[in-house]
Amino acid sequence: MSDIPAVKSALKAQVIETPSWGYGNSGTRFKVFAQQGVPRDPFEKLADAARVHAATGVAPLVSLHIPWDTVPDYGKLRAHAEDLGVRIGMINSNTFQDDDYRIGSVCHPDPAVRRKAIAHLLACVDVMDATGSTALKLWFADGTNYPGQDDITARQDRLHEALQAVYARLGPEQRMVLEYKFFEPAFYTTDVPDWGTSYAHCLKLGPKAKVVVDTGHHAPGTNIEFIVALLLREGKLGAFDFNSRFYADDDLMVGAADPFQLFRILHEVAKNGGLDAANGVAFMLDQCHNIEAKIPAIIRSVMNVQEATAKALLVDLDALRAAQAAGDVLGANAVLMDAYNTDVRPLLAEVRQEMGLNPDPLAAYAATGHAEKIIADRVGGTQAGWGA
Amino acid sequence: MSDIPAVKSALKAQVIETPSWGYGNSGTRFKVFAQQGVPRDPFEKLADAARVHAATGVAPLVSLHIPWDTVPDYGKLRAHAEDLGVRIGMINSNTFQDDDYRIGSVCHPDPAVRRKAIAHLLACVDVMDATGSTALKLWFADGTNYPGQDDITARQDRLHEALQAVYARLGPEQRMVLEYKFFEPAFYTTDVPDWGTSYAHCLKLGPKAKVVVDTGHHAPGTNIEFIVALLLREGKLGAFDFNSRFYADDDLMVGAADPFQLFRILHEVAKNGGLDAANGVAFMLDQCHNIEAKIPAIIRSVMNVQEATAKALLVDLDALRAAQAAGDVLGANAVLMDAYNTDVRPLLAEVRQEMGLNPDPLAAYAATGHAEKIIADRVGGTQAGWGA
Amino acid sequence: MSDIPAVKSALKAQVIETPSWGYGNSGTRFKVFAQQGVPRDPFEKLADAARVHAATGVAPLVSLHIPWDTVPDYGKLRAHAEDLGVRIGMINSNTFQDDDYRIGSVCHPDPAVRRKAIAHLLACVDVMDATGSTALKLWFADGTNYPGQDDITARQDRLHEALQAVYARLGPEQRMVLEYKFFEPAFYTTDVPDWGTSYAHCLKLGPKAKVVVDTGHHAPGTNIEFIVALLLREGKLGAFDFNSRFYADDDLMVGAADPFQLFRILHEVAKNGGLDAANGVAFMLDQCHNIEAKIPAIIRSVMNVQEATAKALLVDLDALRAAQAAGDVLGANAVLMDAYNTDVRPLLAEVRQEMGLNPDPLAAYAATGHAEKIIADRVGGTQAGWGA
Amino acid sequence: MSDIPAVKSALKAQVIETPSWGYGNSGTRFKVFAQQGVPRDPFEKLADAARVHAATGVAPLVSLHIPWDTVPDYGKLRAHAEDLGVRIGMINSNTFQDDDYRIGSVCHPDPAVRRKAIAHLLACVDVMDATGSTALKLWFADGTNYPGQDDITARQDRLHEALQAVYARLGPEQRMVLEYKFFEPAFYTTDVPDWGTSYAHCLKLGPKAKVVVDTGHHAPGTNIEFIVALLLREGKLGAFDFNSRFYADDDLMVGAADPFQLFRILHEVAKNGGLDAANGVAFMLDQCHNIEAKIPAIIRSVMNVQEATAKALLVDLDALRAAQAAGDVLGANAVLMDAYNTDVRPLLAEVRQEMGLNPDPLAAYAATGHAEKIIADRVGGTQAGWGA
Repeated sequence: MSDIPAVKSALKAQVIETPSWGYGNSGTRFKVFAQQGVPRDPFEKLADAARVHAATGVAPLVSLHIPWDTVPDYGKLRAHAEDLGVRIGMINSNTFQDDDYRIGSVCHPDPAVRRKAIAHLLACVDVMDATGSTALKLWFADGTNYPGQDDITARQDRLHEALQAVYARLGPEQRMVLEYKFFEPAFYTTDVPDWGTSYAHCLKLGPKAKVVVDTGHHAPGTNIEFIVALLLREGKLGAFDFNSRFYADDDLMVGAADPFQLFRILHEVAKNGGLDAANGVAFMLDQCHNIEAKIPAIIRSVMNVQEATAKALLVDLDALRAAQAAGDVLGANAVLMDAYNTDVRPLLAEVRQEMGLNPDPLAAYAATGHAEKIIADRVGGTQAGWGA
Repeated sequence: MSDIPAVKSALKAQVIETPSWGYGNSGTRFKVFAQQGVPRDPFEKLADAARVHAATGVAPLVSLHIPWDTVPDYGKLRAHAEDLGVRIGMINSNTFQDDDYRIGSVCHPDPAVRRKAIAHLLACVDVMDATGSTALKLWFADGTNYPGQDDITARQDRLHEALQAVYARLGPEQRMVLEYKFFEPAFYTTDVPDWGTSYAHCLKLGPKAKVVVDTGHHAPGTNIEFIVALLLREGKLGAFDFNSRFYADDDLMVGAADPFQLFRILHEVAKNGGLDAANGVAFMLDQCHNIEAKIPAIIRSVMNVQEATAKALLVDLDALRAAQAAGDVLGANAVLMDAYNTDVRPLLAEVRQEMGLNPDPLAAYAATGHAEKIIADRVGGTQAGWGA
Repeated sequence: MSDIPAVKSALKAQVIETPSWGYGNSGTRFKVFAQQGVPRDPFEKLADAARVHAATGVAPLVSLHIPWDTVPDYGKLRAHAEDLGVRIGMINSNTFQDDDYRIGSVCHPDPAVRRKAIAHLLACVDVMDATGSTALKLWFADGTNYPGQDDITARQDRLHEALQAVYARLGPEQRMVLEYKFFEPAFYTTDVPDWGTSYAHCLKLGPKAKVVVDTGHHAPGTNIEFIVALLLREGKLGAFDFNSRFYADDDLMVGAADPFQLFRILHEVAKNGGLDAANGVAFMLDQCHNIEAKIPAIIRSVMNVQEATAKALLVDLDALRAAQAAGDVLGANAVLMDAYNTDVRPLLAEVRQEMGLNPDPLAAYAATGHAEKIIADRVGGTQAGWGA
Repeated sequence: MSDIPAVKSALKAQVIETPSWGYGNSGTRFKVFAQQGVPRDPFEKLADAARVHAATGVAPLVSLHIPWDTVPDYGKLRAHAEDLGVRIGMINSNTFQDDDYRIGSVCHPDPAVRRKAIAHLLACVDVMDATGSTALKLWFADGTNYPGQDDITARQDRLHEALQAVYARLGPEQRMVLEYKFFEPAFYTTDVPDWGTSYAHCLKLGPKAKVVVDTGHHAPGTNIEFIVALLLREGKLGAFDFNSRFYADDDLMVGAADPFQLFRILHEVAKNGGLDAANGVAFMLDQCHNIEAKIPAIIRSVMNVQEATAKALLVDLDALRAAQAAGDVLGANAVLMDAYNTDVRPLLAEVRQEMGLNPDPLAAYAATGHAEKIIADRVGGTQAGWGA
């Protein structure tokens, strides 16, 4: 049987990080549909993120993206966050939007472009220093579109050189996490396309380098929980970028496309110590709310992660291990499904009430009137999006 | 044995249509890398397209996209095309970039939005009347991102209603072709996701409605040549949108990712009468040259289609049929591979010389100085792209 | 709000058909692991199927496979079924295990092989006559492994001819359902690879021909509920073959790989009238219990379909439609997810009790001692499997 | 420009290994179609393999599979091979066909089963000692079919233990290569599902352990040449299992489904030193000739590898590197495509003639009358297949 007080404690201790860019506009290559009330600067993004934390109680960290969140005074931004009750999470680099990066950044054939990209990465560590962020999140759009366009192994050499330069710059309490992605925006090779490539690089760099698993960045059919379990076994799981997908990197709300997969992932996380703060795994959302209201979508996503976590914590591990050891295929599966089929919403409502929160985060948010207020207030200026 | 004069005749008679938007800027949701010398208006797009035709001799048609190619006077545009030695091909509608289309156009739950979308489609037929175009190409970005977001069958009813309204508006020499797409920009349901859906609608509409096969719009592993063969068998293949992909709708140069697949497609086309002008199949490119020079990329793409066509025409059909009838698996495959493994570049060089062209279209284009001229001339103004 | 009595009625009226071959041995090309107590003949298969019905109350139909279930006297088999409280469901043809079918059956280039295959199909209708079965289920393994091996359109012509011959033979109360499959055992072309091909053939045949959706027979990422909704809209959904898969045609227990997908499918079924007996949709399991105990696996599968159906019936359609009409993306999704997140096991326990059944079908089955009995009794003879 | 004499030398030095089981019967789970003249024992398999080498001149190695190729006296088998002009290549273990392996072999939850599996692996090393084979090829069918069935990380621990035991047993000139596979016969988790998992294990084991790339064992869309390039860069590419696939692990003739992919793979091999004998990469076929004549299919496959290699060797690397360094996307691609589009059959005919061979290996084989002879001679006994 599950130890409900322990489950509740774990749920109260959970920390889910939200991305500053999730509050801004996003879209596809076909169209970005602007929404009313979208933030115009990083301060307004933090204000929205603080509402998510206020409603859910488990989202105190906000991930920044440089240069989209560049400000003249990061100390001021950090203080603003703290005033709002949130903190700066991971710093995300961007080496894909400058015209120089047309055919690559850290893997570009031209050393001058590589130097520029590395300088940006080092500047991101400066932002970490200034904001108190302890992790640099690296995703490289680098790759090629056509066979022959560039040399696969030469690009790996260049990548290694860049990663080493960044690794050497990290402070004692800082770390870097390296994301992989199956494809997009590159359509033939991607320089870090799978967990194996990221893992191989992180292994060479050292203990401060770990792998990021973005749940939307895999080939069709890939067993993501298997990768998660392996990385935890190796001590190399650095962070999640949660979202969900039916097709490619769709960036839908986590838990929206395959809630059973999310549960299986969190089962591996819970079973392999990934929920222990000491393990340092960051649980981040990385989503695009192209057509739905952004703040409610993020609250819903946080709730989806909580529900999957609650179900994972309810798995009767003793019964599971007994069935597994006995080779009881149906019995072991049934133990897992029993937890999954449980409606954990009442349990989470209790958890929230014990945390002094409204049991219904969406209703709590709606009651604040924030949605109406930002539509009224945020008039003029340039809405935040992927380009700014 | 192949009848080389007949092969050459067929290659000289081939018509490949290029898309006006292929000459403009394009990119991914992450970044559009602008290129120098890109056209600023439909007249300049036609000028570039004319260069492709001049170099290859087989690309006299240019497909327009409304509203990207909206002009006050279509008669003037048509005359400009004819002065340049090209003609207006298919008219492509766009019901995905207006803010009203956030959750759909012809399938939107709100009848007012549907009326707006239908009005646009009818306006495209007006453009056909004005430009002499004989085909309307319909691609709908309509779909949903989340389970439950809208009703699948209700959306089909709305789609049918819109298609009927357009069909009724077509003149005696006009037709419509309906494109399907596996996903993107919608990430849960797409209202015309596969050939079956397009076929079912076209069947109900009547003989002037046919299916468009975009080679990048299928689920992984889909056998495209099978679909092509089926549609030709049913008299329902209306057009190709050629491009190539390794992953999703990558829109790379046709023949760049899987030249053998392109050959197999053209083998079905050739074998089933698809090259006969009477069949009315349009052979169009629909690509994005995100990182490579656009006009040379389009010339290369035209050449790739020609090479695949030449190989398809070289298949010894008598030998193939004999081996098939005998159940000789290896023998039949060998007949096909023999054609595929042939280097057809010398044959195509001859064809071009017999057509009075330079045997090397890329060299011919380079020699014109057009690339340098447009970089020098096309300064100022707004470069054409997917947004304009 | 849902009408619980109506939900319960629908659940009590549900009919799930089980396949005779699901009780026999099965495996992969690498190994068939024989299990103890497996039936040696169709009579024993029916005995096992009757246990599933006894435990669940909703599985009174058993699908036969010819020649695996060939018996000298079908009247006797039918009487045996009725004595056990079950009935003969659909008859499944097999044109893939005779040596003559190496490169095809009804699509084979040799007319003699085609005649043999058609004769088998007609003989299956004889079995229908003799057993009272009202539906012939057709799946063709036909296809090719290598490009060029055979002619795609010629094979379609042959297929059409065979289907017509069978259609003409059907009695007034009989119908045929045509299954499609993405691939396997053919690895290049499959002659009925997708719903569109099956639909096109059924349309030409007439109202007694409908499409079978096997949930494991699609390309990666295919939206199956979309196909289901379309076929119901067209009146062309004939039957389901339920199972689940992570990769290809894995034939795992339905609901085991993606229970949310199963729910979405049943939501479309329920919403579009598919649960009405008048619609004649057959809900069949088609699975392989390679490593798990067979009868309990089938009971679990029946329960999984029931749970998904119960959740589908709990969807608040009024609220859903209101949110859809309002374009409320998150609201509409939330209505659907509310039903999915409900734990319906207590409701189904009540349904079973009201039907006079043990609320726990697996416990009910275990209590019968059937599992032990068949292990003791079924000694000697040849265990049933795919080959016999 | 390419150095044709050097290209020819490389082609003459190429060694392609054929699998003993490729000469036996194979099929799908639906049906194994037996062929006439199939070997009944390992001696006859070697006789067939010798014919492939005689016809092609580049296939002197034959890979064995234990227990399918178990013989009482391996010294006699080795001598028989040498008499026929071929040698024993890699030894392939089999831990998937014993009834004990229903839910695993080296990863099984029961230590007794694991011990049995390890004992088999060690016995395979004994066979290496007895036959002079220098490499043990390990593929594990281990995995699970249902979520919860067993513990992912516990199974990795067991796997590591088994691999270590085998590694410790290897002689100074022996090595082991570890194959990964996306799925099948396991349908939920596979214990070595991707190159990253194999690489991580090999890295821990030491320099005698390397990764096997089977070209049919990847998720849809996976860039195989990228993996090949990475493994060569790390010194961890041990062997290829060549075959081709359109869907899953179809095991068709290599080069039959995507010859351009095969060329890209061999381009990476050639460019990164993989053709140097010193690198020790084994180039093996691993295919199933389910419906086509086996020996001609293997000859064709060898030729397909040769043709892809020849094209790869023709790539003008200086021109390629210059275009890559200049960021000339189209130019670099054109260099690669120029080699691919070359018809290398005349070059290979010359190579064969210089080797004293018939320029047409299939004609050479046909002329031997071996096909007719084995049909006449190999009557009675049990044909070899996957089961024996």
